[in-house]
Amino acid sequence: MRVYIQDTYPEDFAHCYGCGYKNPQGHRFRTYYDEAAGETVTCYRPRPEHTAVPGFVYGGLIASLIDCHSSGSAAIFKMLAEGRRPGQGEAPRFVTARLEVDYLRPTPLGPELCVRGRAAEVKDRKVVVESRLFAGDQETVRGRAVLVLLPEGMARRARDA
Amino acid sequence: MRVYIQDTYPEDFAHCYGCGYKNPQGHRFRTYYDEAAGETVTCYRPRPEHTAVPGFVYGGLIASLIDCHSSGSAAIFKMLAEGRRPGQGEAPRFVTARLEVDYLRPTPLGPELCVRGRAAEVKDRKVVVESRLFAGDQETVRGRAVLVLLPEGMARRARDA
Repeated sequence: MRVYIQDTYPEDFAHCYGCGYKNPQGHRFRTYYDEAAGETVTCYRPRPEHTAVPGFVYGGLIASLIDCHSSGSAAIFKMLAEGRRPGQGEAPRFVTARLEVDYLRPTPLGPELCVRGRAAEVKDRKVVVESRLFAGDQETVRGRAVLVLLPEGMARRARDA
Repeated sequence: MRVYIQDTYPEDFAHCYGCGYKNPQGHRFRTYYDEAAGETVTCYRPRPEHTAVPGFVYGGLIASLIDCHSSGSAAIFKMLAEGRRPGQGEAPRFVTARLEVDYLRPTPLGPELCVRGRAAEVKDRKVVVESRLFAGDQETVRGRAVLVLLPEGMARRARDA
């Protein structure tokens, strides 16, 4: 059975507008591990209003998708490095320290978008994820993100909020 | 009178989810030129659902804000370089080729966010914008974006869409 990592986030940290199961107004991006490819995958079909100029996907939505895909991927790659599989206990919660997005060509609005990620680096509290975004079978965007484990001060304030 | 550059985008290219006046579901980010500071400014108050973890702003929204702030800023800096002021005719329409966002510290959810931008480079068809994002008076994020003039093929397909 396919496990989406965001479904295994701790309940206190599952309110993300991009990918939290406790945010009914959000996008609900969900990321799984494609074991055969050794890649993480997040797919999403933009809504008609997610326009840049007519016919093309808004770059901010793409940045959001890559952002949440990367934090989900970081959780997956960290668990794998620890010898755990997604779904074996709660996922570690990573936040983005740096996000880079290269818009190689315009992304057509219509097809489902799928982002595929690989770990460029997995350390104790830091993971680097490199991603490619496809609209149908056309690669249109690349991403790179540096993720860090949710800082304890942020976690404490989130629990109290 | 303050001119918001997005209000002067050509009608065919004013549907952006982030900043288009023809997108009723979008964020409607708006950017003006602060002449005294020599900086562009885009302010926005996130909605309660724009959460990362409780109490903090979603990084994807911040990336979106910096994205549209940067394309608006590129239009402003290009016009200034041409000896035009914002509001003197239609603004040139830039799209993002590369976006970099550094999340220096968590951005608290509550205060209005203001992004302030400067031109690092203004060429014929390319502008580089460097930005700082403030939550109240606290700087929490930095951005850098490479913008290019809307490619003709994209413009044509947008007009036909």
